[in-house]
Amino acid sequence: MSDTKIYLSEKEIPTHWYNIMADMPNLPKPPLNPQTRQPAGPPDLTPIFPMDLIMQEVSQDRWIEIPEEVRELYKIWRPSPLVRAHRLEKALGTPAKIFYKYEGASPAGSHKLNTALPQAYYNKKAGIKRLSTETGAGQWGSALSMACNFFGLECTVYMVKISYQQKPYRRSLMQIFGAEVIASPSDRTNAGRQFLAQDPNSPGSLGMAISEAVEDAVGRADTNYSLGSVLNHVMLHQTVIGLEAQAQMAKADAYPDIVIACCGGGSNFAGIGFPFVYDNLTKGTKVRLQAVEPEACPTLTRGTFAYDFGDVSGLTPLLSMYTLGKEFMPAGIHAGGLRYHGESPLVSQLYHDGLIEAKAVKQRSIFEAALIFARAEGIIPAPESSHAIRGAIDEALACKESGEAKTILFGLSGHGHFDMTAYDNYLSGQLQDYSLPQETLDKALKSLPKI
Amino acid sequence: MSDTKIYLSEKEIPTHWYNIMADMPNLPKPPLNPQTRQPAGPPDLTPIFPMDLIMQEVSQDRWIEIPEEVRELYKIWRPSPLVRAHRLEKALGTPAKIFYKYEGASPAGSHKLNTALPQAYYNKKAGIKRLSTETGAGQWGSALSMACNFFGLECTVYMVKISYQQKPYRRSLMQIFGAEVIASPSDRTNAGRQFLAQDPNSPGSLGMAISEAVEDAVGRADTNYSLGSVLNHVMLHQTVIGLEAQAQMAKADAYPDIVIACCGGGSNFAGIGFPFVYDNLTKGTKVRLQAVEPEACPTLTRGTFAYDFGDVSGLTPLLSMYTLGKEFMPAGIHAGGLRYHGESPLVSQLYHDGLIEAKAVKQRSIFEAALIFARAEGIIPAPESSHAIRGAIDEALACKESGEAKTILFGLSGHGHFDMTAYDNYLSGQLQDYSLPQETLDKALKSLPKI
Repeated sequence: MSDTKIYLSEKEIPTHWYNIMADMPNLPKPPLNPQTRQPAGPPDLTPIFPMDLIMQEVSQDRWIEIPEEVRELYKIWRPSPLVRAHRLEKALGTPAKIFYKYEGASPAGSHKLNTALPQAYYNKKAGIKRLSTETGAGQWGSALSMACNFFGLECTVYMVKISYQQKPYRRSLMQIFGAEVIASPSDRTNAGRQFLAQDPNSPGSLGMAISEAVEDAVGRADTNYSLGSVLNHVMLHQTVIGLEAQAQMAKADAYPDIVIACCGGGSNFAGIGFPFVYDNLTKGTKVRLQAVEPEACPTLTRGTFAYDFGDVSGLTPLLSMYTLGKEFMPAGIHAGGLRYHGESPLVSQLYHDGLIEAKAVKQRSIFEAALIFARAEGIIPAPESSHAIRGAIDEALACKESGEAKTILFGLSGHGHFDMTAYDNYLSGQLQDYSLPQETLDKALKSLPKI
Repeated sequence: MSDTKIYLSEKEIPTHWYNIMADMPNLPKPPLNPQTRQPAGPPDLTPIFPMDLIMQEVSQDRWIEIPEEVRELYKIWRPSPLVRAHRLEKALGTPAKIFYKYEGASPAGSHKLNTALPQAYYNKKAGIKRLSTETGAGQWGSALSMACNFFGLECTVYMVKISYQQKPYRRSLMQIFGAEVIASPSDRTNAGRQFLAQDPNSPGSLGMAISEAVEDAVGRADTNYSLGSVLNHVMLHQTVIGLEAQAQMAKADAYPDIVIACCGGGSNFAGIGFPFVYDNLTKGTKVRLQAVEPEACPTLTRGTFAYDFGDVSGLTPLLSMYTLGKEFMPAGIHAGGLRYHGESPLVSQLYHDGLIEAKAVKQRSIFEAALIFARAEGIIPAPESSHAIRGAIDEALACKESGEAKTILFGLSGHGHFDMTAYDNYLSGQLQDYSLPQETLDKALKSLPKI
């Protein structure tokens, strides 16, 4: 049997990130200043971001060098393994070849550390002492806490209250790395106090927590804000995943027919996918790229392509993206990282231009896929990542039907060690499917700003 | 800077386990039949173990071949990484070179899968349908559940009741892999019913759970018993750790002055240590080998070298080992995997013969070490593994004092993702040190059987 894991050496960690803005046929429309509704330039962003990241946000250079200090820390877990899923193939009885790129080998447990490290690095370099951010499921907060720890920055994490209560272990993990963790909405910010006035028992949402974290950063000169998804520079940093996967697929003498990843704000999908979009755009390949999202939060498949705010209070610049409306309140599904109303402008534009696909799946079907995967491959996947597994299993079963031996690559963005309550619910039969009612969506879309 | 991680290819997974019984100057005294008190031969063990494992238990062959089916499954995570702890060295300001062998990369989260897989394999080969076992902290139960899943065996785990209640996520993990998990003491066995009659609120202990699991296996022809530590064949299987570490150290052009591992029943210590004892015994090296145990359960440092039972009820053969007495009830420290009254006969004999060292450490000092390590290296270690970290940090600080640049290798046996409650307690200042009072020890030692 061929090797199960395909490793690269540390010398093969990419030296540059790939910037898709150099190659995409249509660039996203520019972000707008939330007050003036005019295109936002770098000066609009300096209150919360360091100049290096702002320049990455607008750069059209194809390759952007990864700082040596960041590459040195990437060595903690990178290059991450690419795994040939021999046992999963056998369990499914499929002629397809299935590979997965495993980002759960990161000490933070997910792909989020790929961007947390450079964000902390550039802020440190700019003289910033403290970062504020939000976290939903906890993956991003864990990663930024760890990155701040490595660069000697303070870190304050506004954690969506329902997660704060349901996931005490995630909170502990952040505290181990020295972060301050605050349940959001909180009384620490004007935004938080407003949300609490409207509903003292609010379970919180990512959009609310973003409002709080942004306000925190705007108010203090020593503090910047850090976002774990959506923005262009975040997509950029994540491309180490796909670049490594390409080198590993080449070592395995394989190339994917389809690349599948879960998609919330888009950073994991962009990370593994954009280098293959590059191949399609510049080398004539025809890789299918599939973003898988929850039916309960179907941003690409049922949202609208429009300008919207990134947060509930309307403090962030307006972004051109697929959105469910900033006031969309997602159901309490267990894939907390996929419960965001918006979508990366880059991913949105590619989807709008027909360069990538999307599909939405039900919650029970993703846990069914997670169990098939865990029992075959041994790894317990995060609920978010299990969306990609569902997509991959569906493709593999279609191959079984058609007899085609396609090569499937999917991104396994993280492990589920802090999501065992979700598995408990599934195993005990308590987990419910939830599809978004059209009237709820229509109502949320009314919160879209008029441009 | 030199590479952080030193990998081997899957082809470099050892083909044979190392059996220290071929080389140790004095073999342990033979196990005794619990009824007759006469040396127990293979026939005494056939009710609960398959013949292949029984033969490994008594073999004096130096190298025992690893079955191809087991090596194939080892590929899920083996060869495990050897890591040069550059950042930990820097944080300590030590001239020492620190390496650690990371077994938490296993999907079960610890080194336990190294022996769970061959045990499940040999039982399957012998026609057994079901395995029973016990688990304390949950590491062993997780590993055996996963191994049984891979080989299509049923698995019943008697989980120490206090762990069952405190660690629901460990239970979920076992259930994901299809195991039946029962809080021990339970009403499923005579032994369990007796313990409950004595104390309906008993928090359980490993010794009690072993009694239940052994009784379960003795009573059913389709069922064998499986033990995650102590026995010779378990030590044997774990030697893949040390054998890989030797190949990796050679790649890094290094050789350890001291090898450090935590030590409960002894399997992790034996795994990384025995191949270096082999070097000492046959190649003239002088590697120090240090077993680190909790002050609350100081089997080697304060126990007695004598024949004792492996379980509370006296169902198992009597083993020649360091023991605190089978009725020893350990304090509720968080290193659940190190709360066993006995010690591997092989490790015990080597310690008795002065071929290895041991030291005991306090609980708060191991969490202090764990935090230093996590913040430097990014990995949150299991409380058990943190005993080895404490040992390594102490050696590294001694080097700082003396100016010596020793090479330190320690075994990081597992991650702490399912032990966050312990970290919470430490961070909130609630964690207490506990040293075993002499009178408690004296009382427990009275339970030693008369031979």
